[in-house]
Order: sequence, then C-alpha cells, then structure tokens
Amino acid sequence: MATTFSDIAPLLAEQAIELPSWAFGNSGTRFKVFATPGTPRTPQEKIADAAQVHRYTGLAPTVALHIPWDNVDDYAALGTFAKDQGVALGTINSNTFQDDDYKFGALSHVDPQIRRKAIDHHLECIDIMHATGSRDLKIWLAEGTNYPGQGDMRARQDRVAESLRTIYAALADDQRLVLEYKFFEPAFYHTDVPDWGTSYAQVAALGDRAMVCLDTGHHAPGTNIEFIVMQLLRLGRLGSFDFNSRFYADDDLIVGAADPFQLFRIIAEVIRGGGYANPDVAFMLDQCHNVEDKIPGQIRSVLNVQEMTARALLLDREALAAAEEAGDVLGANAVFMDAFYTDVRPWLAQWREGRGLPADPFQAYLDSGYAQRIAEERVGGTQASWGA
Amino acid sequence: MATTFSDIAPLLAEQAIELPSWAFGNSGTRFKVFATPGTPRTPQEKIADAAQVHRYTGLAPTVALHIPWDNVDDYAALGTFAKDQGVALGTINSNTFQDDDYKFGALSHVDPQIRRKAIDHHLECIDIMHATGSRDLKIWLAEGTNYPGQGDMRARQDRVAESLRTIYAALADDQRLVLEYKFFEPAFYHTDVPDWGTSYAQVAALGDRAMVCLDTGHHAPGTNIEFIVMQLLRLGRLGSFDFNSRFYADDDLIVGAADPFQLFRIIAEVIRGGGYANPDVAFMLDQCHNVEDKIPGQIRSVLNVQEMTARALLLDREALAAAEEAGDVLGANAVFMDAFYTDVRPWLAQWREGRGLPADPFQAYLDSGYAQRIAEERVGGTQASWGA
Amino acid sequence: MATTFSDIAPLLAEQAIELPSWAFGNSGTRFKVFATPGTPRTPQEKIADAAQVHRYTGLAPTVALHIPWDNVDDYAALGTFAKDQGVALGTINSNTFQDDDYKFGALSHVDPQIRRKAIDHHLECIDIMHATGSRDLKIWLAEGTNYPGQGDMRARQDRVAESLRTIYAALADDQRLVLEYKFFEPAFYHTDVPDWGTSYAQVAALGDRAMVCLDTGHHAPGTNIEFIVMQLLRLGRLGSFDFNSRFYADDDLIVGAADPFQLFRIIAEVIRGGGYANPDVAFMLDQCHNVEDKIPGQIRSVLNVQEMTARALLLDREALAAAEEAGDVLGANAVFMDAFYTDVRPWLAQWREGRGLPADPFQAYLDSGYAQRIAEERVGGTQASWGA
Amino acid sequence: MATTFSDIAPLLAEQAIELPSWAFGNSGTRFKVFATPGTPRTPQEKIADAAQVHRYTGLAPTVALHIPWDNVDDYAALGTFAKDQGVALGTINSNTFQDDDYKFGALSHVDPQIRRKAIDHHLECIDIMHATGSRDLKIWLAEGTNYPGQGDMRARQDRVAESLRTIYAALADDQRLVLEYKFFEPAFYHTDVPDWGTSYAQVAALGDRAMVCLDTGHHAPGTNIEFIVMQLLRLGRLGSFDFNSRFYADDDLIVGAADPFQLFRIIAEVIRGGGYANPDVAFMLDQCHNVEDKIPGQIRSVLNVQEMTARALLLDREALAAAEEAGDVLGANAVFMDAFYTDVRPWLAQWREGRGLPADPFQAYLDSGYAQRIAEERVGGTQASWGA
Repeated sequence: MATTFSDIAPLLAEQAIELPSWAFGNSGTRFKVFATPGTPRTPQEKIADAAQVHRYTGLAPTVALHIPWDNVDDYAALGTFAKDQGVALGTINSNTFQDDDYKFGALSHVDPQIRRKAIDHHLECIDIMHATGSRDLKIWLAEGTNYPGQGDMRARQDRVAESLRTIYAALADDQRLVLEYKFFEPAFYHTDVPDWGTSYAQVAALGDRAMVCLDTGHHAPGTNIEFIVMQLLRLGRLGSFDFNSRFYADDDLIVGAADPFQLFRIIAEVIRGGGYANPDVAFMLDQCHNVEDKIPGQIRSVLNVQEMTARALLLDREALAAAEEAGDVLGANAVFMDAFYTDVRPWLAQWREGRGLPADPFQAYLDSGYAQRIAEERVGGTQASWGA
Repeated sequence: MATTFSDIAPLLAEQAIELPSWAFGNSGTRFKVFATPGTPRTPQEKIADAAQVHRYTGLAPTVALHIPWDNVDDYAALGTFAKDQGVALGTINSNTFQDDDYKFGALSHVDPQIRRKAIDHHLECIDIMHATGSRDLKIWLAEGTNYPGQGDMRARQDRVAESLRTIYAALADDQRLVLEYKFFEPAFYHTDVPDWGTSYAQVAALGDRAMVCLDTGHHAPGTNIEFIVMQLLRLGRLGSFDFNSRFYADDDLIVGAADPFQLFRIIAEVIRGGGYANPDVAFMLDQCHNVEDKIPGQIRSVLNVQEMTARALLLDREALAAAEEAGDVLGANAVFMDAFYTDVRPWLAQWREGRGLPADPFQAYLDSGYAQRIAEERVGGTQASWGA
Repeated sequence: MATTFSDIAPLLAEQAIELPSWAFGNSGTRFKVFATPGTPRTPQEKIADAAQVHRYTGLAPTVALHIPWDNVDDYAALGTFAKDQGVALGTINSNTFQDDDYKFGALSHVDPQIRRKAIDHHLECIDIMHATGSRDLKIWLAEGTNYPGQGDMRARQDRVAESLRTIYAALADDQRLVLEYKFFEPAFYHTDVPDWGTSYAQVAALGDRAMVCLDTGHHAPGTNIEFIVMQLLRLGRLGSFDFNSRFYADDDLIVGAADPFQLFRIIAEVIRGGGYANPDVAFMLDQCHNVEDKIPGQIRSVLNVQEMTARALLLDREALAAAEEAGDVLGANAVFMDAFYTDVRPWLAQWREGRGLPADPFQAYLDSGYAQRIAEERVGGTQASWGA
Repeated sequence: MATTFSDIAPLLAEQAIELPSWAFGNSGTRFKVFATPGTPRTPQEKIADAAQVHRYTGLAPTVALHIPWDNVDDYAALGTFAKDQGVALGTINSNTFQDDDYKFGALSHVDPQIRRKAIDHHLECIDIMHATGSRDLKIWLAEGTNYPGQGDMRARQDRVAESLRTIYAALADDQRLVLEYKFFEPAFYHTDVPDWGTSYAQVAALGDRAMVCLDTGHHAPGTNIEFIVMQLLRLGRLGSFDFNSRFYADDDLIVGAADPFQLFRIIAEVIRGGGYANPDVAFMLDQCHNVEDKIPGQIRSVLNVQEMTARALLLDREALAAAEEAGDVLGANAVFMDAFYTDVRPWLAQWREGRGLPADPFQAYLDSGYAQRIAEERVGGTQASWGA
C-alpha cells in the first residue's frame, strides 16, 4: 500500500538539522574570498543568524561551533545567548589545520610535542563540550602529505590511532567522538583519514562511542555514497552527516544543488537502515556560501533536506520489495523514481502553515528585513571567515 | 647508509608471482574478442603456456585456476601435469557471474535457492582445493544492481555475509578465503563488495583466515592505492594482490604499463609493511591481453613487478626517515625518487644469468620458437576465453 | 511571466526520438550477456519491436540501423516493412570494430589496405542510405591503442582526417556525416576521437554537412555536458544526441536513470541554444538493456526524455534572466530548480490521452500481451546481439 | 638506429623554461597559507630568487609576471634589474579573479561596465608588455558559476568571445594572446573556458597570434593529456605549457612529482609534433610550493623537465615505427619504456659540468647559503602571496 503525506507527517516533525556557525562567515577559494555586508564578526552574531534559519523553517534547532574560530570566554553565557535566540549549541568541531605547528601534521605529526599540542586542543574542546552541554566532538584531520616519501604513512596512521585513544579516553560517558574522512585536500598526495574504511577501522578500535562522520562531498568521483550510508548503519558506526553537494571535488555547495537524486538516494538509505529520526545519527550541514547569500543559502539547504526526506519517506517499500522479489528491474526502479518525482512542495507548505511556520520560509526571510538590518548594524570589526 | 644491489639480491630470490590461467585464453571487451593462433583450448595448454613464463623468468612458479573455466575430471592429474611442466597449481577462483541464474546476484541473491547454488559452487571449489593442494579460495563477486531501487542493498549485504559464513565454515584449517573488491562493473549502479572497507568488514566478521584481495585496477579515479596497502597490512588483512594496470577503469592492462611510479609506490609500501617475501601476502597477476601476445605479455608483467621490486628494495629508508624527521619535504621526496629512477635492468640481467636464467627472458622466449610451435599444433578445438 | 503547460503543448508535439535497432537485441558486459525469450533474430523483428515503442508513446517514429548487424538483401523492402509497422528507417551506423582486420584500427590503421576496407564499408553504408532514404551516416570510431608507444597518435589522427574526407566526399548533398566521440573503451590508452574538441576539429575540416554526435555517456567524470551542448550549438556543429546514462563509465543505462537533473540541464541547454524541435539536431537513444526488459526499457527511456523536456520547456527564462542581471544566485537557482521539481507526469498523461495515446504507455505495453507473444513465437534462430 | 646521449646534447642546450614569479611567494589552500622566512616582499625579490634557479641550472632564463601582483612603477627598470640578475622578463599574466567586481565574472560578466574594466586591465597588461618586451599575454579566466541557472552559459561564452576580440585587437604584431583552460575551480558548476576545445574554438576565432595554453593540472581525471598536446600541435595552436603535477585536482605540485611517466609521454609528444625547441611553444612552470621550500622546489621542477626531456629525446623512433608497422604491441611499448627507464641523471651531471654548471644544481643551491641570507635579510614588510 502506498505511503501518503499524512503517514509521513509525524516523521517529518522529528527532523532536526544542525547548522555550522562557520557557514555564516565569509568563505571562498584559495583564489579569493568575497566579503559581504552584514557578515557576523562574533560567535554571537553567527548564532543570531543561524537562529533566523530555525525561526523560518523549524528545522535547525542547533548550531555547531568550530574551535578556535568560535572561542569565547564564557561558553555558558554563549549557550544562554543561543537559547535566547531560540536555538541551542551543538557539536564542537576541533581545528588542527591552521596553526603553523601543524604544517606537517597534528595528531599524526612525527614530533611528539606537536602531537601533544594537538591532543591538548581536543581536551580543551572536551572542556568546552562540558560547558556547552554538547554531545559530539567532531574531528576532521586535514593532515597528510603532498609528495610521495614525505611521510611514513604507516607510522602516521599508528600515531593517529594513539592520539585518538588519548582523546577518546578523556570523553565523558555521554559524549561521543565522531571522525570525519576526506578523500583529498588540503593534503594532495596522501590524507591520513581518506575514506570511510579508515575512519571505521580507527573508531572501531576506540570503543562504542566513537563513530564515523560522512561528509557527502568527501569521496572520489563515481562513489556510491548511499552504499556507504548503508554499510556504516549496518556496522553501527554512522554518527553523523555533513551535508553539502559538489560537482567535482569538495565544492561545499548547497546540499541537493548538484545532484538532487543522489540526495534522495542517500536519505532513502538512511531511512531504510533505521538512521532517520534516530538521535545516534546527526544531520548537519557543512557548507560554504562563496557567492550566494549566507542565511538564505542555509534556509535553502535545510529545505532541500526536508523536501528530499519527504520524498524518501513516501517510497512504497512494499511495492519495491515485491518488484525485487519478482526480478522486475524496471518495476522496482519505477517505484523508486515515482517517489523522487513526486512534487512534495505544495504539501509541505501546507504542513508548515499548520505548524505556525511560513508556507515559504525562504521568501518570509527575504521579506523580514533582517538582511538589511544586519548590513546596516554590523559596521566595523573583522568579518568572520575560516581564517579567524 | 644506502642499500645496494647485493643487499637486495637475496630478497629478490624470494619473489614469486602467481599467473592466472585465463590470461592465456582470448579476452577482449564487450565490443569484440580478437582470437589469435596458438591460443590454448584446455586447462593443460594454459598451464603449459604459463610454465613458459616461469621457465624464462624464474618468477612464476604457480598458476591460478578459474572454476568452471578450468574444470577437469581429475585435478590430481592436472597437478601432476603442472609439476611436469615445472609449475604448481595455486589459488582457486570461483565464478558466479556467468550462469543465467546469477543475473540478479549469487551470494546476495534474494532467492535462497540461487544463493544455495552459488554457495555449493564454492564448496565444490574447496573440494578442488583439496585435490590440488591450493591454499586460497579467491572470491570476486560480480554482483550488484544497475538501477536505483532494483535491489535492497542492505539486505543484499547481509546475505553476502551469511553466504560467506557458510563458505568459510567449510574451509580446512590451512585454507584461506580471500575476498576481492571492485569499484564497479559488471554492475553499474551498486556493487555488493565495491571497496576495501566493505571487503575488510566482511572478512573481519568471518575469522582469521579470511583476507582481502587488492586488485590494483579496482578503484575510483584518484584513489591512493598504496595507502590501502598500508592500511590492510596494518590491520592484518592483506591476503593477496591482483596486479594489473589501468588508465581509466578496470582495463586489465599489463601491470606497470599505465603508471610505473604507482607500482613502485605500492611495492614500496608492501615492503614497508612487512608484506614482501611474506607467504601471507600473495602476489598474483590478473590481467587480459586483448591486443598483445599473451605469453610475452605475462613475461613482461612479471618482469615489471620484479624490476619495480628491485627499485623499491633499494629505497634508502634511513635517509627517508631522517628527512621526514627534519621536515625536509624535498629531501625526502628526492630519496624516494632516486630509488625509482635507478635503472635496475642491467643489474637484474646479470643477476639472472648468475642464476641460470636468460639475461633477457622476453627475448629468450621470442627466440625459442614456442609461439610458432603452438600456432601450428593447436589447430581445431575451441580456444579458451572467459566464456568457457 | 511563467510558462504554462498549455504554452508548451505544441512544442511537445514536435518531439521525435530515434530508437537504435540494437537496443532490442541482447547485450551485456565482457563478463556475460544474458539472453531473454522473445529477443529478435532479424532486423525485421527488431523494427517490429521498435514500432511497439512508437505505438504507445508517439515519440519514436524512426529506427536507426547498424551495419552489418542489420544487413538485409533488400533495404527498400525493409523500409516498406518499417512503414507497415508505423515507423521509418533512420540513421545508418557504421561498424568498424568487429572485423579481425580492425584489431589495430580502421580509418586510422597504419596499413592503407585496411583503411581502404574501412572506407569502403562506409561507402556501402552510403549506398544503404540511398536505399533507405536516411539522412545521417553516424560514425563511431572504436579505434585507439592500449599501450603508450603502440601507435603514433599524430599519424593516426591525420589518417582519420584523410579517411573521413574520402567518406564525406561520397555523401549526397542532402546527407550528413555525424562523428561521435568517446572518452575511452574499447581502447584503453588512447582513443582516436576521444572528446568533443577532436570531433569538432575533424568535422569542421570536412564541410558544412559534417556534424558532431554527443553521446551523453562518453565523457570523463565530472564533465559539464550541458556546457558542451551549448558550445556545439554555438559553433553550429551539434548534429545529434546519443542519449543514455551512466554512473561511472559508458554504462549505457536508461537515459535519465542515473542523474535526472543532468538530463534536465542538458535539455534546457538544447532549448536555450535553439536545438529543440530543430531537424538539424537529432535526438536518438543509444542504450543497452543488460538486465531489464528491452521494449519497456525503451519506452521508459523515451518517456524520460519527454518528461524532462516538458520540465525544461517550463523554465521561466525571463525570471532567470532577471535574477542573473541582479546577481541573485539563489533566486536564479530557485527558478531553475522549480522547473525541475515540477511533476509534469499527470499533465502529460492527460495530454497523451488527448492525442489518442494511452495515459500510461508503459503499463499499456505491459498489458498488451506483446511480450508473451514474441516469447512464444520467436523460438529457434539466433538471437540478435552486438556480435551479429 | 638508437639515439645516443651525444645525439641529444645539442637539443638539450636549447631548452628554456619560464618561471612564474608567484612561485616564490607564499601559497597554500583555502584552509591555510603557511609562511616561511625569506619569502620575497617585492617583485624584485621574486626575480632575484628566480635568478638563483637559472644560475644553478641554466634552464630558466625568463620570469613571468602576474599583474597586479607584480605591479611596479617602472617596468623598464624592472627589466634592467632582471637583466642584472641574469634573467629576462617573460610572459605577462592578467588577473581578473581578485577584484570584488569580478565575483560573477570578468570578460563574461553580464554588466558591460565590469567587462570594460576587465578588458581595460588587459590593455594595461599590453602596455606593460611593451615596456618589458614580453611577447605573450596569458589569460586564465577564473570565471564561471557555482549553481545551475546562476548564469546563461551561452551568453557568457559569446561575451568572452567579444571581450577577447577587443583585447586581441590591441596586440602588436609581434605579440600573442595565449588562452588557458581549466576544468574547474574556483567556479564549481561551470567554467567559461573549461577545456581545450573551448580554448581552441575561442582562439581560432581571433586570429593567427592567438594560441592555447595547456596547464598540465587542468583536466578531468583520466584525460590523456599527451593526446591534447598532439592535437593542438596538429592544429597549430599550442602556444605554451603551464607545467605542474597533480594527483586529484589542480594540486599545483612539482612537475613530474605525481606521474613522471605522464610527463615523459607529454614531452615525447611535444617532440613528435615539432613543439620542442620551437619558440612558438613556450615551456613554463605554474606551480605552488605549499609545504616545500620554494627556490629548491623550482630547481627540482626544471630539472625534472630536463631529465624527462632527455629521456624523450632518446626515444628510438625508427624502432617504434617499425614495431607499429608490424603490429608488435609489446615491442613498440618496450621501445617506449626503454627510453623512460633509462637513467639519464649521471650523463646530465657530466653534461652540466661541461657547460660550467654544477653537476648537482639542487645541492649547489643548498650549499650556497642563499636561503639563510634571505631569511636574515628579508625581515619586515609583507610577504608576497596570491593575495597581493
């Protein structure tokens, strides 16, 4: 029996997507970072902007922080500030790629003193987690080498393992370590955690509260990402998503912008594997807005995830199973595509209104005058970007 | 202190590379398989050809069989035949991709009867292993789907696991299961064992005698294969190599032909990780010869592996470590490249002569008249190819 | 002002998509070709099957032939047969990749006698075109090399140019030469016509009636295909499309199956550049059906093209231009995505019924009993496939 | 008859490789730019560093400038300064990717005033060329879009053509326009000049003094770059090389570092097509040194090109042609690989000494104390990087 909109309404109500504070700062490429009026200068201003996304969509109740980009003196006060804005603080992201000491590695560095410094940074992040009430420590290791021979990949891998053990041991029982992998960049020859297999092998060696973070932009061309979703859920190690999209490399474009059908397949597999509306599998955005406006860019992103979730929830799994059982390739694919091609937008608009949200959150934000206000108010200071 | 040729001579003497019987049959693309005079019609003729490779190079003492392509009534007799030719039988490869029943899968098939048939084929392969004295059962699963929705990837993965458990349980204590992975093809949307992570997760669930087979042509563009070598050795699960090379996809070209420097890096990492001259890590070829002559194609292949092994053994690891310690990127890379650029061929020619082998095995084979003889003798019958 | 369904109805009525006769024969990979009951044994049976696609969709009035696969004694009679089935014969495809002489090339071969043979084959194709009334001679050159050094790429390129000149000179004034390019396969190191630039340079040297064929599956990973569509239309050299889809390589899957949004973008660019409903730009399918049923596979394919054409025709180009002018990245993208996400299927069903076609051509075919009939009738003989 | 070292010595003497001034400044990724002591603060200091490369290698007599990065008040004086250092000024590179106005394009921008500004920048570059005596104006267009729908690709292409026409018309008769193409980045959805075909079509429309620049890092995965070299030489439009290497994307690593065999193939094809020691085909480096030292990084780079040129010049083309004629795939490949595997380094060391150059330029530079001197002297000021 086909699934209907009313079947899926309660499930949609459970969706929550974490926003990255850094999406509200300036970003760009190595060639140029374009600045825009109204860009936040402080963690507080980033949180205020993130709260706008939640206000109009009801989808984004938490904000992830990046340390030291979001360093403040008083994290409890920051949490209160967020609460006053209508959101909460979420995942803490460490940063071991912008200190001069980390030129040749951090958790993997050949020098024990630099490893120690990088470990200490993570311990400091855990302290912040206690202050903010964050559950997850997300670690992306930008380290690797640019030239064959530059580093001993095996020894580096062993050192990553040892460093992670020390960090993991410092976590409280209700905290998790989530290890991201990335195919390449900023290291160009080898990356210490380049694929899901490495991230999985590393976290499996740590313990039950160590998980893998799947960033949708961090794979080789042609990789079947939903297969990895399936496998990590099967192995019990899918901790979170970093959503974004890409055409070629790690483009960090708006999730769903480059290949909407891929996003549909990914979410369909999340649902299939029990990862939807499951607190153990966090949905997060990790994107940049190099040329488009930031707040509406984030609004579009969470709406894209929501719309594709609605489509994926509509999938008629009984019909799918029956077609597979019958060896009916075209029939099964037709069931799958039917869900994808269903235009859920009018229904979602209605559903939103029923929940006191604007039918069109994107337009509601544009009409709110917020963009003009921050452009006028935020004069002087240093605009936030990856560099600070 | 730099490594010298005389340092590495004893290590070179330990090298053994298994040849695939199917390399001696005709092969090609979906567009056309070109036939050549002298192509074997029987497993015996394939083995006789393989023995030529060993005769001139001393590098290829064993021959892998593919079942049912190499089905014979009496495997013990086949073993004796091989021994008379100067070689031994090696790995047994199963084949679950050419029976009409396997159109939608074999070990993963939704129908338990077809899974049973595929499992039974593997049990039959194990029987053959007992008859031939083979240690390794190599499994490549060609299965997957062509269209999203066609199959339930998660259920298929669970069925693969269950089927492999049954097969693994049937192995004797001195036998191993080696599971190959492949990025794509012949399935085009999803492949059930597409990457090293999946193969690793599957074999780790089986037991200590289940290992991963790394086919050098089975990765996404841009994949750092030597990293995977490192990781699998580190995890104790690198069972064997299927050597070949490729420019774009699974081209099955002569190993070292497309990117010799990559082959160097791979072998350097094998040596670094203790996988060289280690019986647990089997070196095998898995190639086709679509347009070039088959026996000399195999001779060139094993020589390429040998030459690159010699270069990799020459690597000055102390200098490398010192440069890394000093953060000397260019110095480390220079040490690495120096080994690669060293022309080991004259020395290897000498070394061969000292061992009673021709200085130039390739030319010696061409001069032997064997090609002309088999072209004349092998008239009639059906030439071997993947189809039979 | 937004475009409406009634605006686009007349344009949809002009759509015609040519079917490849070979889509109705068996196909597969180098590993296995699975046969199915009812598969055509003759060109006539292929045409009869193709006519079914047109009967239910009204979209596929012509059938392309592949020579010598579709060789008959009397092409005029074949044309009459097609007409009786309700379709016409279309493009003639040459084949220079399955004769033993072409192992090392055809139009590029170093041996002038083999080049002459390949040229003569094309002259024979032109004769057939006269008999069938076909306008287009489509040439896909499977030639290239597998190993660096195997061939002199430059000399080969010059010979391709010379051979094409000879063929082009034999065309009548109302005939065209259409040159396909392909990134790789069956040649694995270099392909003589690998990219649009080469095809363009070659046809530009021939004359006004030489055009490029863009096969949507024949590009490197990450290639922006709609850009090439734009460029070839701009240069006046886009002769035809070979539609299909792929996840990794030249998978020849159903058009629109792998990345529907890409198909949308391609067709949107065709319309933008004046290539839609333009007789100079032929829409053709070039697909295989390895695991799915063939006739319904073709029906699904032409429907996918039609549905995506409807979406692309709905694109509000005024709004798009206004947003671009304003530097409104998100606004422009929203206009673009809105057309893509519009579910045109209900409206197309209505529109079909208004034209005497079944609302659901796919189901109508399945209900017709044709599949069962041909399975029963077509017993004995040799099923058509790429090999014959 | 095989080519010998003495045959190629005169040809090697003709080699000249232009260095990019920006290689001596700091560079990095969007994540971090690491600074190093001694980095130039002025165009003069960059030129002084470049002169060191030439001093020890004799291979790098000219330095390319990037405007406005290398803006000076008096270009004639800068030329004199260079001459005093033992080098000359070379190609002028324009820069239309770092001004806020160019966020949505420069030569392709929808706003005629911004196009005019970008054109004027090029006219200013031409003025500089007159002052410096430079022949080539190299144009790399970083422009494109990040999201489908953001821009009208066709109109942008037409505007690029129009802008280039204006610039080309301003060139003197002995000046050339060289148009670079790049697969992606910094634009992520579409790039206005993404491939050699587009660059070729654009320059062919301009006139005889408009040429294509081939940057070896700017292609899709799996692209056969030497084929493009062949084709552009054949079409008479290969104006220059930007040498570098990459594993995945546009990594800008040291030329020859990632795939030395590819560099060999590229140079072999340059020689084959008459592009070597041909003033119309300029050899340039375009690289970064993110983690390695800059001056020795450039020395290694030009030596890599020289060593690979020596190997490629040694290629026995008669033997190659004979093998191809005979259809001897393995024989032809063996001839090709033999040249690649020949260790030319000892002979080149001797040859250098015979010309008054150090046998080991790399070590000679390291021993010179220059690095220490500039680290001590260059204190204060702003280190050069892409940003300035």
